Formats: sequence, C-alpha cells, structure tokens
Amino acid sequence: MTTPPARSTDERVRDTIARLEQDVDAWVATADPGDGTPYLVPLSFLWDGQSLLVSTPTASPTGRNLADTGRTRVALGTTRDVVMLEGAVVALGTGDVSEELGNRFAARTGFDPRELTADYTYFRVTPRRVQAWREENELRGRELMRDGQWLGE
Amino acid sequence: MTTPPARSTDERVRDTIARLEQDVDAWVATADPGDGTPYLVPLSFLWDGQSLLVSTPTASPTGRNLADTGRTRVALGTTRDVVMLEGAVVALGTGDVSEELGNRFAARTGFDPRELTADYTYFRVTPRRVQAWREENELRGRELMRDGQWLGE
Repeated sequence: MTTPPARSTDERVRDTIARLEQDVDAWVATADPGDGTPYLVPLSFLWDGQSLLVSTPTASPTGRNLADTGRTRVALGTTRDVVMLEGAVVALGTGDVSEELGNRFAARTGFDPRELTADYTYFRVTPRRVQAWREENELRGRELMRDGQWLGE
Repeated sequence: MTTPPARSTDERVRDTIARLEQDVDAWVATADPGDGTPYLVPLSFLWDGQSLLVSTPTASPTGRNLADTGRTRVALGTTRDVVMLEGAVVALGTGDVSEELGNRFAARTGFDPRELTADYTYFRVTPRRVQAWREENELRGRELMRDGQWLGE
C-alpha cells in the first residue's frame, strides 16, 4: 500500500469542514472531575458553522462530565482519517434551544431529545483547536485551528 | 433503512473477539490526573487473547496519563458498531517485552517502537468490562464482560 502525499493545510481545512457538515457521529471524550475517570461515547451532532450541538442524558457520565468540567476532546472520522477537536462546552437551558434549532438537530441526528421521557441536556461545543491527519506523513502540519481561528487560506 | 434485529450476547461476544483479533486501531481515552483534562487518540494495538498491547511516546499526554492513572476507556470499531472496553493499564518495562512479543506487535501494527529514537512505552490494557452495540435496539444487552469475565455461552 502506498500512502498518498500529505494534504496541504487548505485541503485539510476543506475536508474537515466537509466532515463537520456531513458526518452524523463523533467520539466524545470527557473526564470525571472528582476522580479523573476517563469516559468515551459516540454521540450524534449538528454543526452550525461554529459549534457542534450534542445532546445526552443529563444524568449520564458524559452529561455530568460536560456540565461539571466544560471540557471535551472530540474525534470525527476514522482512526486513519482523524479530525480532532478541543473546545469549550456550554450546557444549554431549555430556552436556549429554539424550536427551529431543535428541529434541525432532530432531522440531522435522527433523534429528538424533546420527545423522550428521560431528561436530556443539549451542549454546545465550540472548537478552539482542530487537528486533522490521515497517516504518519500527515502528523506534521496537522494543526488547522488555533485559539478558535482556522489556519491557512 | 431498516435496523437489523439485535444480536444475542453470544453473537456479540463472537463479533467482539473477531474485532479484537482483526482490527488494528483503537480510540484510547485517558484523563490527566492533575486537572482532569480529557484526552483521546487513535492507537494501534495487538490483542493476545486477554489484553491489548499498545505503545505510545512516554512523554505524550496519553503516555503520561496511562502511566499516572492506570486507567483508560477504549473504543473499537465505528460509532454505529461500537466495542467499548474499560480496563486496568500496566506500563511495561523494557524487560517485560520479549523479542517475540515486540516482533508480533510490529508485524500487527506496522510500527516498531524499538527502532524509533523517541522514548516509547508499551502498555498492557486488560479489559474488566466490555460492551458492544450497533444501533439503539442493541443498547439493551450491551454488557459482554463484567469483572473480567465474558458473559453468555
């Protein structure tokens, strides 16, 4: 197998934004602030151009960790086509999610937490740092966003 | 799209062991014991029937977190065909990795930390708890290993 040449920063930014707009699921890593237990689950998301919107049971480990720490590391794609985000997390109150946004989330993810009996919280994850790489030869140059600003172009 | 019927525990155990034997990469989540920063990276692994062997730079966040906490949560597969492991982590000293084991690791993963100039540590991750699910209808019954024992059969 031949590894394709490393993509430029601009190519990676384009591929990453395409993933954010088209992918449905992400791997969401959090940690328990009490004892540092690492946690990891797949969650569906909606990208609005600046942030990912996710929703998870308020009482779940991920829900509690996101609310308590405001921190997450999120991976999209596969282990050989990685997009990695670090961002600030804000828990949204019921009034913060308009009917239109709730509808877009449901259409995108295929589930509507507003219709479930369990108590769900929406969280907004705004990336401050983004990296993307495929194989070893793309480890260099994997930084695509720093302090919330896309690089390149 | 029709969701296939939920697999039985025995089917899931078989599928999970097949993944452990055939997959090359896993998502490895850890946390910094100091400030609880969540971390997540893809790592290649070798499964020996009881444990995953991984290797990562000793000074990397994952290397430090694994060494300091002895804890990880590891996902195999995709967000719609998940295998999730929680396990105990042991850092291996140079003398703990036989030449044969080092060779098997290199053959499996395609990289040989013994040949690299950077300082790498091998870690053994022994699952105590394993879950596997594909879609919503498999959330029930996703527990496949408890306290290090496979369920079913």
